[in-house]
Amino acid sequence: MNKLPTIPQDELKLRLSRLQQALQVLKLDGALITHHTDRLYFAGSLQNGAVFVPKQGEPTFYIKKSKERVLQETIFPVDEMGKLKEIGQQIEQKYGRIERLGIAEDVTPYKWVNDCKQGFHQVSIERLTMVIRRIRAVKSTYELENIRQSAKKVDAVMRQIPQFLKVGMTELDLVAEIEYHLRKQGNYNLYRVRGYNQELVLGMVAAGERATVPSFFDGPASGLGLSVAHPQSASMHQIEANQPILIDIGATTEGYLIDQTRVAVIGCLSEQLEHAYHTSGKILRRVESLIKPGMAWEVPYLHALEIATEEGLGEHFMGFGADQVKFLGHGIGLEIDELPILAKGFSLSFEPGMVIAIEPKFTFPGIGVVGIENSYVVETDGLHPLTETPEDIITI
Amino acid sequence: MNKLPTIPQDELKLRLSRLQQALQVLKLDGALITHHTDRLYFAGSLQNGAVFVPKQGEPTFYIKKSKERVLQETIFPVDEMGKLKEIGQQIEQKYGRIERLGIAEDVTPYKWVNDCKQGFHQVSIERLTMVIRRIRAVKSTYELENIRQSAKKVDAVMRQIPQFLKVGMTELDLVAEIEYHLRKQGNYNLYRVRGYNQELVLGMVAAGERATVPSFFDGPASGLGLSVAHPQSASMHQIEANQPILIDIGATTEGYLIDQTRVAVIGCLSEQLEHAYHTSGKILRRVESLIKPGMAWEVPYLHALEIATEEGLGEHFMGFGADQVKFLGHGIGLEIDELPILAKGFSLSFEPGMVIAIEPKFTFPGIGVVGIENSYVVETDGLHPLTETPEDIITI
Repeated sequence: MNKLPTIPQDELKLRLSRLQQALQVLKLDGALITHHTDRLYFAGSLQNGAVFVPKQGEPTFYIKKSKERVLQETIFPVDEMGKLKEIGQQIEQKYGRIERLGIAEDVTPYKWVNDCKQGFHQVSIERLTMVIRRIRAVKSTYELENIRQSAKKVDAVMRQIPQFLKVGMTELDLVAEIEYHLRKQGNYNLYRVRGYNQELVLGMVAAGERATVPSFFDGPASGLGLSVAHPQSASMHQIEANQPILIDIGATTEGYLIDQTRVAVIGCLSEQLEHAYHTSGKILRRVESLIKPGMAWEVPYLHALEIATEEGLGEHFMGFGADQVKFLGHGIGLEIDELPILAKGFSLSFEPGMVIAIEPKFTFPGIGVVGIENSYVVETDGLHPLTETPEDIITI
Repeated sequence: MNKLPTIPQDELKLRLSRLQQALQVLKLDGALITHHTDRLYFAGSLQNGAVFVPKQGEPTFYIKKSKERVLQETIFPVDEMGKLKEIGQQIEQKYGRIERLGIAEDVTPYKWVNDCKQGFHQVSIERLTMVIRRIRAVKSTYELENIRQSAKKVDAVMRQIPQFLKVGMTELDLVAEIEYHLRKQGNYNLYRVRGYNQELVLGMVAAGERATVPSFFDGPASGLGLSVAHPQSASMHQIEANQPILIDIGATTEGYLIDQTRVAVIGCLSEQLEHAYHTSGKILRRVESLIKPGMAWEVPYLHALEIATEEGLGEHFMGFGADQVKFLGHGIGLEIDELPILAKGFSLSFEPGMVIAIEPKFTFPGIGVVGIENSYVVETDGLHPLTETPEDIITI
């Protein structure tokens, strides 16, 4: 009774072969996977420890806690992990001398790397973040199925919103209802973010001008939040009639996230906001027909900016003033900030299997934020939608 | 309208003086505070960026996002943060040559430190984690007041539990109710954990033998969880009559956490479990009269183990078998895993102002986990309770 579904074996074998291929191209002797999400991805378990992946042959899961559970979850041999300073010895005893070791430098703490280096005879630490992130950006059928389940969860709660959205409720009241309904569907209310110092619960829900308040969060809209300790998303302020209510939320299934944004209003929106909302739709239609494998990640942003400018909305596009961002969307998967990054300056190309959230939004200082965010999978013939919720403004 | 309460100026000045004193003792030229929680603590804002604290004189908040908000939140001068590789130049232009720079090595990513080093003329990176954690372990009146508010939130929801706890509801259903009621009180459903690869939502709620399932989480009880991606706390299994239901939850106010555990049951518990529960109470009474400033952190654990053994419960104390931990409690504050650590091998001493959660628990394989967790503040005359909820088993 105390078992949970595990990641399919073939899935783990495919992921391993892609990582080992990359290690061979980069002439690395192996990789040490330290981060829980990377470990879940490559070894099927986020039980605590570290996974050594040699450039060829079988990896080892060095486990700190819990051994009982990792044995149920991973397909690789498991060994107990000693102190950080000794893991190098453990690895070299089993695999021989390691001269070049890849580590995800963006997430592994400084202490971790420095302590761990001491156990190896003489090792050079090589950066592996982009390799890992590029492998993870291309999703399998199994991963897409989970993201589709998450899309259904979010859609189900969005369809319930007319039942509980009322004038005078606080933004937090609205979030409490959304989270409650998602939880009842088996959702886990923590949304993993890879970026240092980034964190997220649910997403971002805010009404009127509070949605225009920026924060530490790397997105086009943030919200005021509850305190200086939690300065993002819903606040304790009340929702009023005729305010745009930005509902940018996600859900998870087996850790896989969907991300979508809709706008609700109790009453009606001004013509200006309606126009901006429809421009978001126009941008989505353009990029839906545009994106194909091989295209550079920045191209959709440039087209979106062109449409926004044509519609007289350039200075409101993706934030306003100093907080405007040159960005249109992002990859999603086990984390909310995966590759690709649909932003100016990114010349890497879309590949079949990439999953992206595209979120054209418009910020009007003192008034609010409107926009639509849909998620898609890139296939050989172009974008296919994953989001299930209709795009209309939810009008109460 | 878009303002939130900030951390009092005097509070920030006191924290700064304690850090600068430590820097002088360690002969460091300054500290670079990179982690959001440390930045909130020392500079009053977790807007994204980094804070340079010189060994004397005024710090600078180098801001990435959002400048508008950090200006409302911090009392220190704000400057825009360029690329990571350039922050060293920015700092040395303003403060002169920095030869020894303290960084929290446990949380700052490897890439961050390595990139940042490049901007300095020639800098030696020094470990600052224990200094920061020891300063943060001693709480002010302001911090205690926030923790007391959090204790009230948790107490309010615990008093509502008899209204919604029913046979046949899933563990997740119970969590959904608890989270909903906490949210309505202004709670933020993310509980910051400092440890690498540790994360937490709400705490840990599980019934019967599922509470005995271990996980990656560094605690005496974990729970099965929802999936291999979220393998901790509540599962989708139903709660049955006469099972011990472990409710180990927290709440936050201005980021400050309380942590408490109670046991509920629909029906009644076996004599064995009742005995273990009362032994938890006996242990708490002993350590309440025992702990004084100057005592080593490991002493309460040793006394607790002695009582557990006397009561014939030694092998069930704080886990069972390979997953038993030599630990009794932990500091709480902005993070759930602060200092002190009440565990074997810790010879540092309690100080007035430290806030600790003490959690004697007993694990019975195949049956469940029972225990009580209370939070306390250490004062000059000993422990004073912060937890408000009565200790009796919640019997439905």
